[in-house]
Amino acid sequence: MRVARFAGDDDPRYGVVGADGDTPIIAPLKGDPLYAPLELTGEKLALEDVRLLAPVIPRSKVVCVGKNYVAHAAEMGGNVPEEPLIFLKPNTSVIGPGEPIFYPKQSQDVHFEGELAIVIGRICRNLTAEDAPKVIYGYTVANDVTARDLQAKDGQWARAKGFDTFCPLGPWIETDFDPSDVRVRTTLNGETKQDGRTSDMVFDVTTILQYVTSFMTLLPGDVVLTGTPDGVGPMQAGDHVAVTIDGLGTLTNPVVADD
Amino acid sequence: MRVARFAGDDDPRYGVVGADGDTPIIAPLKGDPLYAPLELTGEKLALEDVRLLAPVIPRSKVVCVGKNYVAHAAEMGGNVPEEPLIFLKPNTSVIGPGEPIFYPKQSQDVHFEGELAIVIGRICRNLTAEDAPKVIYGYTVANDVTARDLQAKDGQWARAKGFDTFCPLGPWIETDFDPSDVRVRTTLNGETKQDGRTSDMVFDVTTILQYVTSFMTLLPGDVVLTGTPDGVGPMQAGDHVAVTIDGLGTLTNPVVADD
Repeated sequence: MRVARFAGDDDPRYGVVGADGDTPIIAPLKGDPLYAPLELTGEKLALEDVRLLAPVIPRSKVVCVGKNYVAHAAEMGGNVPEEPLIFLKPNTSVIGPGEPIFYPKQSQDVHFEGELAIVIGRICRNLTAEDAPKVIYGYTVANDVTARDLQAKDGQWARAKGFDTFCPLGPWIETDFDPSDVRVRTTLNGETKQDGRTSDMVFDVTTILQYVTSFMTLLPGDVVLTGTPDGVGPMQAGDHVAVTIDGLGTLTNPVVADD
Repeated sequence: MRVARFAGDDDPRYGVVGADGDTPIIAPLKGDPLYAPLELTGEKLALEDVRLLAPVIPRSKVVCVGKNYVAHAAEMGGNVPEEPLIFLKPNTSVIGPGEPIFYPKQSQDVHFEGELAIVIGRICRNLTAEDAPKVIYGYTVANDVTARDLQAKDGQWARAKGFDTFCPLGPWIETDFDPSDVRVRTTLNGETKQDGRTSDMVFDVTTILQYVTSFMTLLPGDVVLTGTPDGVGPMQAGDHVAVTIDGLGTLTNPVVADD
């Protein structure tokens, strides 16, 4: 099932994405499916008529794993860490599909990083390997936008990865998905820049969730980014960046100068 | 005015701390004063009869400044940064006064760091020096608990500073407070370990808020920690750590082994 969040008249609404014959539609839900039972309103809207938003705004945090693909760790000039390298992006950095990534004046080297994102469905701590899959609500596509120059300058990555708009998520959450071996591809203005497979992750989804919850409680709606394949590179204002994960969809965002 | 949050029968409640003659009392409020107009219920409770909680649970984030006192930067073996060094603690690390700091098995070197904390009252971005004070709801006391061994090992500080219980806040929020030159003192089992003054901060409250909001939107209830004076050191299970800021009060927490 694909669960999307979309702009309503007042507040955002949620819906299930499907098809009516050949027409992609969205069937609105009552309430937020992360916190309320799944109940359709009975409406049917053409998908092209609604504006999709980030499928989830984490109540608490976006937890990220750095250098989780061997070839990316190498292109960053380092080895793979012995344990997952964890950092945080604030929920204020989250935007949805189609929303602009603002290129900040403070940076001259803003990079894309296409990633698989896990959406947490249940409060959890100290997960076992057996229980880890049970707390996953679903998966979506993420772009861990990074000001590469500030990342090197600051040492801590909170600014370089925490700018408003630096965490595009979407287009929806897929609740039935096997993350073990899927293609993750990033294009810039249509040209392929990253092309990896999740099977090349150093630490898989279960291991990441076990590790993170060994020190930090995860809450429903928290999002965990699983690292980026090699091929990261710069974007410029005017560019369009798209991250595609097979079975999930494509997350596209324009890059716009922050004036 | 001192605004506290305390355990109610079901949900946490908020109240104004004061005195009835010589007896410290708390006058409960309707709703959360960060989001609702200030309205007393008319009740009066003895302060000693209520259990205080963290005065705020950030909806979004705890933003922290590292190495913001010259003498502390020196004891950490480094110079003062040219710009504020920003990192994040997750809101899941927040606890209140009296609640236990759990000493994790993953660390053998957990340190206290007493700090002044700013509580944000209004959504803000790109603050000017003139506007920065207007977004401050008040101030409270914080302990930026840090697993020093993991901080060095991981490079990124998300784990070392992000464990559940590693962000004690309290005992309340003081809304009328001049942060420019007050004493910040940390004791361990009654023995003074840190004794600094906020006038020794490298970057003052206004500069910190201008810097943080130059890249990140702050939301009502977000908390900004302003750095710790020198004298940081280890705690052990069984210890009691207390951070006192003149004009704000004392935040005391026991340290308990995480079994």
